[in-house]
Amino acid sequence: MDFTTISDALVSLPEADQFAVDQAHARDTQLTKPAGSLARLEELAAWASGWQGRHPPTAKRIQVLVFAGNHGVAARGVSAFPAEVTAQMVANFKAGGAAINQLCRTVGAELEVRALDLDRPTADFTAAPAMTEADCIAAFGVGRDRVDGDADLLCLGEMGIANTTAAAALACALFGGDPSDWVGGGTGVDADGLARKTETVAAGLARHGDTLANPLEALRRLGGRELAAIAGAVLGAREKRAPVVLDGFICCAAAAVLHAARPGALDHCVAAHRSAEPGHDRLLSALAMTPLLDLGLRLGEASGAVLAAGIVKAAIETHAGMATFAEAGVSDKS
Amino acid sequence: MDFTTISDALVSLPEADQFAVDQAHARDTQLTKPAGSLARLEELAAWASGWQGRHPPTAKRIQVLVFAGNHGVAARGVSAFPAEVTAQMVANFKAGGAAINQLCRTVGAELEVRALDLDRPTADFTAAPAMTEADCIAAFGVGRDRVDGDADLLCLGEMGIANTTAAAALACALFGGDPSDWVGGGTGVDADGLARKTETVAAGLARHGDTLANPLEALRRLGGRELAAIAGAVLGAREKRAPVVLDGFICCAAAAVLHAARPGALDHCVAAHRSAEPGHDRLLSALAMTPLLDLGLRLGEASGAVLAAGIVKAAIETHAGMATFAEAGVSDKS
Repeated sequence: MDFTTISDALVSLPEADQFAVDQAHARDTQLTKPAGSLARLEELAAWASGWQGRHPPTAKRIQVLVFAGNHGVAARGVSAFPAEVTAQMVANFKAGGAAINQLCRTVGAELEVRALDLDRPTADFTAAPAMTEADCIAAFGVGRDRVDGDADLLCLGEMGIANTTAAAALACALFGGDPSDWVGGGTGVDADGLARKTETVAAGLARHGDTLANPLEALRRLGGRELAAIAGAVLGAREKRAPVVLDGFICCAAAAVLHAARPGALDHCVAAHRSAEPGHDRLLSALAMTPLLDLGLRLGEASGAVLAAGIVKAAIETHAGMATFAEAGVSDKS
Repeated sequence: MDFTTISDALVSLPEADQFAVDQAHARDTQLTKPAGSLARLEELAAWASGWQGRHPPTAKRIQVLVFAGNHGVAARGVSAFPAEVTAQMVANFKAGGAAINQLCRTVGAELEVRALDLDRPTADFTAAPAMTEADCIAAFGVGRDRVDGDADLLCLGEMGIANTTAAAALACALFGGDPSDWVGGGTGVDADGLARKTETVAAGLARHGDTLANPLEALRRLGGRELAAIAGAVLGAREKRAPVVLDGFICCAAAAVLHAARPGALDHCVAAHRSAEPGHDRLLSALAMTPLLDLGLRLGEASGAVLAAGIVKAAIETHAGMATFAEAGVSDKS
């Protein structure tokens, strides 16, 4: 695989199964509830049908992929936490102690964590491209390959100290605006740290200049392995017919690479939530996505995605399981 | 029980266990995540601790109570559906075919449906009080008694053709404004029906005049049995230490009676969602409640409450199950 292969794949993306969508809409009018009264839940059931390519849709297997990476820019003091926390949190995920472990258990989702060369951080993007093309493609390929073709739903998330800085730089490269529009507190950086983040993003954009007009180059030069893996998983899910629930700012910034390369590339994705990280709201607008939840979360590690997957699961199971007016002997609208 | 007994109970409501709240906050600072990064989930865990009166809080038993009633004002053409649908939907709940049945299964909640004298609709409130005091107290008592003292969480909801009209009248009596501020499409009434709803509410308010200044009298004169039962269940949950998740417009209007009678009476309640029924947003503002979800739902039958209970459950289980920084060997903020 190389960037050309990815670009080619983006040109010929599979589309939603419109027949399954139509079946969902048709069934919906028969279910024992006022038409439209489940609103967003009805949309989710039809969306899941279309991207699963079948009706009724199912929600038995929810796959959660969390990718972890380390970032050269962490050395610039852009995070409230030291870089070793990435590996420590991966160990915590594996031991079952993190928020995402509890959320997966509550929702009935299966967590898989992939650490991507944590002992080999990406380059500091203010000095050089974060990744070589080979590195970026390898991480992208891990994401693409890890998607389970039997998943009914795929939740994506990440862990990586300093990766809100990478995500802010990437989002700024993809959608324009000032670095300060995209930079936020992350895990809880102070005012000086915030200023360093903004300067780092500005320096990265200046360093890489016009090469950033190519979204995949922007990913390679400013992103990180976990962002590349997320982009790869979004593509893999499209190819394998798994609807995707995107987590917060970093996850959406990674997915946005595909959107920038090919509008419509995220039609099989839904935004889980609006993060407290201020750039996320701007990013959701750029992606024209209305998030399912707005609870002030800013943890990452797919936590918002899995919480929202509970809503999607409820939407699917409600659609599939309800009785029709005829079955239940309920009078329709007078 | 009579109105005086209820008023007395409202004066001496149990308060949250501040020690349990403090324990939740203390544990929260130790958990392996940036401080505050789970935002609303952290607040929910502390709130549940306080009202359950223990730490850590639990979310094993989620009780769902759906009360059903019929309304004299249904004869005035204020609903898109005929009045017999109330009983038909109760049968559908019992057969497992309604949205709420699927949602309860998905979230792991236990549904109990109580039909309240469906063959004896309340009086048309434009002509007479909807209920006698004995009727209102009996329904209130059913709600109060049905709360399970072992429940970790109680979700409340309703079914009753024409009950958005009763709820609009009640909300208008409790919080003022014009009838048109509180009236909406309900199950999908047309413009003529909407006009009839507004006229019905206005006529009810005119008919009962100053007697409505007493919130319990407003409930008796304009409400319905399912609304009285919800108000009773909210009180019963406070007495039995079960945190409550309120559903949409009708459920909140019923609960608002207690708030109007005694500010703080709903401190153990959280609003599940912002309904598409326009009066609900106004009602949430009057109650100073920020809903957990905003998905355009307008079904009732506790559907939004159970969906939101999934979020509360996730918050509780995440708080209780996560590892601390010390347990996981994760470095705290640098």
